[in-house]
Amino acid sequence: MSLPSQSLLTALQRRLGYQFADTDLLRRALTHRSAQRDHNERLEFLGDALIGMTAAAAFFQRFPDADEGALSRLRAAVVSGQSLARIAQSLELSNCLILGESERKSGGRHRQSILADCLEALAGAVFLDASVAEAQQVVAGWLQESIEAASPSDVVDAKTRLQEWLQGRGKPLPEYSVIEVKGVDHEQSFRVQCRLVHLQLRTEAVGSSRRGAEKLAAADMLEKLADSVDD
Amino acid sequence: MSLPSQSLLTALQRRLGYQFADTDLLRRALTHRSAQRDHNERLEFLGDALIGMTAAAAFFQRFPDADEGALSRLRAAVVSGQSLARIAQSLELSNCLILGESERKSGGRHRQSILADCLEALAGAVFLDASVAEAQQVVAGWLQESIEAASPSDVVDAKTRLQEWLQGRGKPLPEYSVIEVKGVDHEQSFRVQCRLVHLQLRTEAVGSSRRGAEKLAAADMLEKLADSVDD
Repeated sequence: MSLPSQSLLTALQRRLGYQFADTDLLRRALTHRSAQRDHNERLEFLGDALIGMTAAAAFFQRFPDADEGALSRLRAAVVSGQSLARIAQSLELSNCLILGESERKSGGRHRQSILADCLEALAGAVFLDASVAEAQQVVAGWLQESIEAASPSDVVDAKTRLQEWLQGRGKPLPEYSVIEVKGVDHEQSFRVQCRLVHLQLRTEAVGSSRRGAEKLAAADMLEKLADSVDD
Repeated sequence: MSLPSQSLLTALQRRLGYQFADTDLLRRALTHRSAQRDHNERLEFLGDALIGMTAAAAFFQRFPDADEGALSRLRAAVVSGQSLARIAQSLELSNCLILGESERKSGGRHRQSILADCLEALAGAVFLDASVAEAQQVVAGWLQESIEAASPSDVVDAKTRLQEWLQGRGKPLPEYSVIEVKGVDHEQSFRVQCRLVHLQLRTEAVGSSRRGAEKLAAADMLEKLADSVDD
């Protein structure tokens, strides 16, 4: 296990836009479970919640006319593993990660899931080190570019994007089916499944319309495909 | 659509432990979509995120030895619709809800989902009306009793509780199956399905062990059963 140098940590804090009072928190946030017992997974749990709230507040302000379904989809896109990994890359977390031997040898430093989890853990560490208001501001800075790039029309279109992704690879189209319908009239909710038979993958989502639920399930499937390409 | 009287709103704010500067926000938070266009669903989106963060921070502090899996399960239990509805009842939200005609006639005032959603919307309204630190404190007050009552051993036990629930009603036991396994070695994740064939219900969950995922899927199933009993 090799620790990042002081100069790497100083540069990282500059990029993060936050100077830790307690640098042990910073070190723990960078420590993957493969490295030692005192790893970053509890911080990741905390940071995930802070990132979720920060993104929710940002989208709420940014799109005053978007309904809660659109807001949820926008947020889901920005807090997805893929999106957080991209932010982690832009903050150059890779060279500061503290990994165990086997993880390091197998290229863990550049694995999307490890990078995304580490970004969440850093958010958790800032949350503990600062006031909640300051932590929210710091995290909003990390998310800013992704939030500004997101628009309600992007996320509505996941079904089309999934179809194009599959067609571009000459694969069969997804199968959608309604698994469950609850409630009556304008308060119905639809649970829909999206299946890719050739890959034995499936996702489920709930929405207030069949079509809305299909889009959410398609968005999850795209995420799953991106993960599996990454692995 | 009948509006709650000023004295009802004053008493409610006393129970909430928060006095709104902008009482329009309070009114909107109480307005179900059945009542009018200007309803509480966007606020609910925002409040859900604040409640999630508040619960995460509270459990993180309260259980310094719990791993992130246990923390997630604790949080999920406290922010579940059932749990939030119970808190909404203890805050006596029912008599302040602003509902449309048909919702009112069909007993919407006491429906768990409406109560839970309204509590989330109130959290969102406090978030907009106050500083984030104050909002977190107010919401922590609402959750306090549930958080103090929760213990890591409760939520681990969802499989057992589901089994007992079914046996107590003379119903067949759930069927668990692994749908997907991802990753290698100590980084595997298991997607597991829990089915109640006789009720045509199923839930899915992902965990870092098969058994852990089964427990999560069982917890979701318990939630689903509680909802369907409520409807």
